[in-house]
Amino acid sequence: MEMPIPNPSILARKDKLVARLLQVLPEDAVIHDEAETRAYECDALTAYKCPPLLAVLPSTTLQVSDILRICSEENVPVVPRGSGTSLAGGALPTADCVILGVARMNDVLETDYDNRIIKVQSGRTNLSVTGAVEENDFFYAPDPSSQLACAIAGNVGMNSGGAHCLKYGVTTNNLMGVTMVMMDGSVVEIGGAHLDAGGLDLLGVICGSEGQLGVVTEATLRILHKPEGALPVLIGFDSNEVAGSCVSDIIKAGVLPVAIEFMDRLCIKACEKFAKAGYPKCEALLIVEVEGSPDEIDAQLAVIIDIARSHNPVELRKAKDAEEAARIWLGRKSAFGAVGQINDYMCLDGTIPVSSLPFVLRRIGEMGQEFGLDVANVFHAGDGNMHPLILYDANEPGALEICEKFGAEVLKLCVEVGGCLTGEHGVGIEKRDLMLHQYDLVDLELQMAIKDVFDPAWLLNPAKVFPLSVTERRRGVNLAAE
Amino acid sequence: MEMPIPNPSILARKDKLVARLLQVLPEDAVIHDEAETRAYECDALTAYKCPPLLAVLPSTTLQVSDILRICSEENVPVVPRGSGTSLAGGALPTADCVILGVARMNDVLETDYDNRIIKVQSGRTNLSVTGAVEENDFFYAPDPSSQLACAIAGNVGMNSGGAHCLKYGVTTNNLMGVTMVMMDGSVVEIGGAHLDAGGLDLLGVICGSEGQLGVVTEATLRILHKPEGALPVLIGFDSNEVAGSCVSDIIKAGVLPVAIEFMDRLCIKACEKFAKAGYPKCEALLIVEVEGSPDEIDAQLAVIIDIARSHNPVELRKAKDAEEAARIWLGRKSAFGAVGQINDYMCLDGTIPVSSLPFVLRRIGEMGQEFGLDVANVFHAGDGNMHPLILYDANEPGALEICEKFGAEVLKLCVEVGGCLTGEHGVGIEKRDLMLHQYDLVDLELQMAIKDVFDPAWLLNPAKVFPLSVTERRRGVNLAAE
Repeated sequence: MEMPIPNPSILARKDKLVARLLQVLPEDAVIHDEAETRAYECDALTAYKCPPLLAVLPSTTLQVSDILRICSEENVPVVPRGSGTSLAGGALPTADCVILGVARMNDVLETDYDNRIIKVQSGRTNLSVTGAVEENDFFYAPDPSSQLACAIAGNVGMNSGGAHCLKYGVTTNNLMGVTMVMMDGSVVEIGGAHLDAGGLDLLGVICGSEGQLGVVTEATLRILHKPEGALPVLIGFDSNEVAGSCVSDIIKAGVLPVAIEFMDRLCIKACEKFAKAGYPKCEALLIVEVEGSPDEIDAQLAVIIDIARSHNPVELRKAKDAEEAARIWLGRKSAFGAVGQINDYMCLDGTIPVSSLPFVLRRIGEMGQEFGLDVANVFHAGDGNMHPLILYDANEPGALEICEKFGAEVLKLCVEVGGCLTGEHGVGIEKRDLMLHQYDLVDLELQMAIKDVFDPAWLLNPAKVFPLSVTERRRGVNLAAE
Repeated sequence: MEMPIPNPSILARKDKLVARLLQVLPEDAVIHDEAETRAYECDALTAYKCPPLLAVLPSTTLQVSDILRICSEENVPVVPRGSGTSLAGGALPTADCVILGVARMNDVLETDYDNRIIKVQSGRTNLSVTGAVEENDFFYAPDPSSQLACAIAGNVGMNSGGAHCLKYGVTTNNLMGVTMVMMDGSVVEIGGAHLDAGGLDLLGVICGSEGQLGVVTEATLRILHKPEGALPVLIGFDSNEVAGSCVSDIIKAGVLPVAIEFMDRLCIKACEKFAKAGYPKCEALLIVEVEGSPDEIDAQLAVIIDIARSHNPVELRKAKDAEEAARIWLGRKSAFGAVGQINDYMCLDGTIPVSSLPFVLRRIGEMGQEFGLDVANVFHAGDGNMHPLILYDANEPGALEICEKFGAEVLKLCVEVGGCLTGEHGVGIEKRDLMLHQYDLVDLELQMAIKDVFDPAWLLNPAKVFPLSVTERRRGVNLAAE
């Protein structure tokens, strides 16, 4: 993946930049030693690495404002970073950038149970948002698999989802407002603890904007009352396609389980080894979770079990207690790590209409044979958000390139069947050049013109999201026009 | 409410404009006779009227594109219009504008039950979207009281809600994608039948943008499977404040009824007269509706009735059959019309945190006494979306002005308690000048810069949404800079 050539003038001004930043930040918040900046050289897309020029770790919105103002004045790119769990290279540095990490900004600013909201600093981890309210039986719904580590800042940046988002929606459905610092240092408050206010609703465009528009420092989130109970059911099938049909039929029937997760044979095996979840041996496994009162759970399960039976499952089993339920979820949520213990892999993230699941699963299998690579499938099946893991040998020269080619074909297939390039991991650098398969130039130009409004000099999170071919041609045109 | 002075150069070019429009539209789609244009002189905010220069009634996206391209070339303002049911003057013409009505664009383009979506032309009425899918037991959730008449185009423009949006969310939560024509005539496709795609998510900013960014010609909407059953319960109280506390406690308990509607004595009386719904005589009435299987309904009702009893209701009654349930809802949904048969009124639309309901209701009562005007309260209490109806005599000189002053004070109160100026009716011309109470100049400038991207010449739906004082000063600055 091509990255922009570092600006030598910035590299030459490193000392000046450090000095200016130290005027607004404590000493331990400015990381400039080369050995230490290396800690920020990549995110969870570890195939790509590049140490930044500097890293800064502010504690307040005011400090973020000072940092951005200084970087703006010095014309230095800034890459915002939550916890660095992006699988799409969303927090990958450039050699001439300042990494702005929000990890120290993790306070709870307000909890308001009457209005069901919590306000936090954006560096707070996803799981610790729930942690702050669970003693009052509340929780924060979006639950990425990385929820122990990932920050709300990254969740907002990528519009993150999770297993339980089938019922509760993804980040954008649970985000009420943000405090955001723009590249010139000005601070805006967008949304809040109420329905959409008048005027243009900028919250939707900020959520999922991958750090292109500003640095979110605080977020007001919707919290929900915990359901009375929840019960996962395991449904095993002897083919991926039949499992896909079962998912499609459950959704079509209008039942809305809180989660429908899918794992194929390779993935089941890896997760079972890791979590001892008691998964059955089969080609494809669904974890369907329903919640509510015992009566509500029974009513929903009756419909789901009827549909499952009509597809001749090889296994159909309810979790017998809370402990088994917890193990079932531990297995699923550890899937990426568990497969990683067996093999190198590239994790894809595409979304398709649920009714296309059987067709797309069959095509991925066929394409795997063409490319000579195995695929472990694990995904949020209920809303069509797929995460095929393409297995390859990272030590074999050329293997990554073949793997990336295969991945690109799978994502194009997602777009062809009416889906899209990403569900929750974002575009980052990984899918930048595939954006032309999703959007035409008129659509992209409109998006880039919005970026112009927030960040006219294009200093925020450079070389991500938009195809370099398009941004560079556009910059050429603009330069010619000036 | 001040409106911009018509541009005499446009008025002088009326014949040329008609001739150009007739090159791309059939004769009956261009309304230029003064007697006929008068049909478009106002929307449901009838206190303000101004016949447009022309009205056009396209049937296709291509025709809309031609119209906007021509108006753009001729520098003529365009006011998009759905069914003209806006209560905030969102479709009020200027004397030099072309009204673009989408009423003829009402086809269903696609229904896809597997993926739970329907794609319609934007002029289709809200209720007839459900009409197109109900034989398969599906429905479209957002249900504004005007749903028999109001168009999806207007729903998207105003991010409309409705009684049942407490559970299902408002338009933005049920809108998957749009086809939109920009002012220069270019056509963009935004979103679609899948989760948010990569790049900047423009759908959120388009939903609720009140015709400021483009003309939406097609919409892909989420449809839902009908619940097994639904049951409304009437809960009467002897004070508005106690009813408000009861709502706040229901929400706090984490139960999520599909609707919690509130009516006060004045409103109950008017609606009872109109719909013979069997409402009890009391100071404040809640209609709480729960849905699901009989067991699910019982379980939810048990919690709600417990909470209601703890507030000493004067009435607590379930609808005994579907016919009574229908009458209960007919009464509520006819509230605006029913009050209108008794008195002239101005309908407000503000949103507050649910926990502030008791305080805000008391303050509105006190303010009514100060201004010497009665208020009928009817609103979506579950999500804090209030619709106080201020009663006044339209024939009394000066009465409207006092009423507007009172209304402005109520909306400022909404903002003060942490709510906002509008829930679902939009800003339009009505609340344009109050926007400075909600937003500071940095926020407004950001919104206006987004408007610049979509509509650089500010031809779309002029003099709405943004305070004239701000837009005119800004235009002055821009002119000075040129």
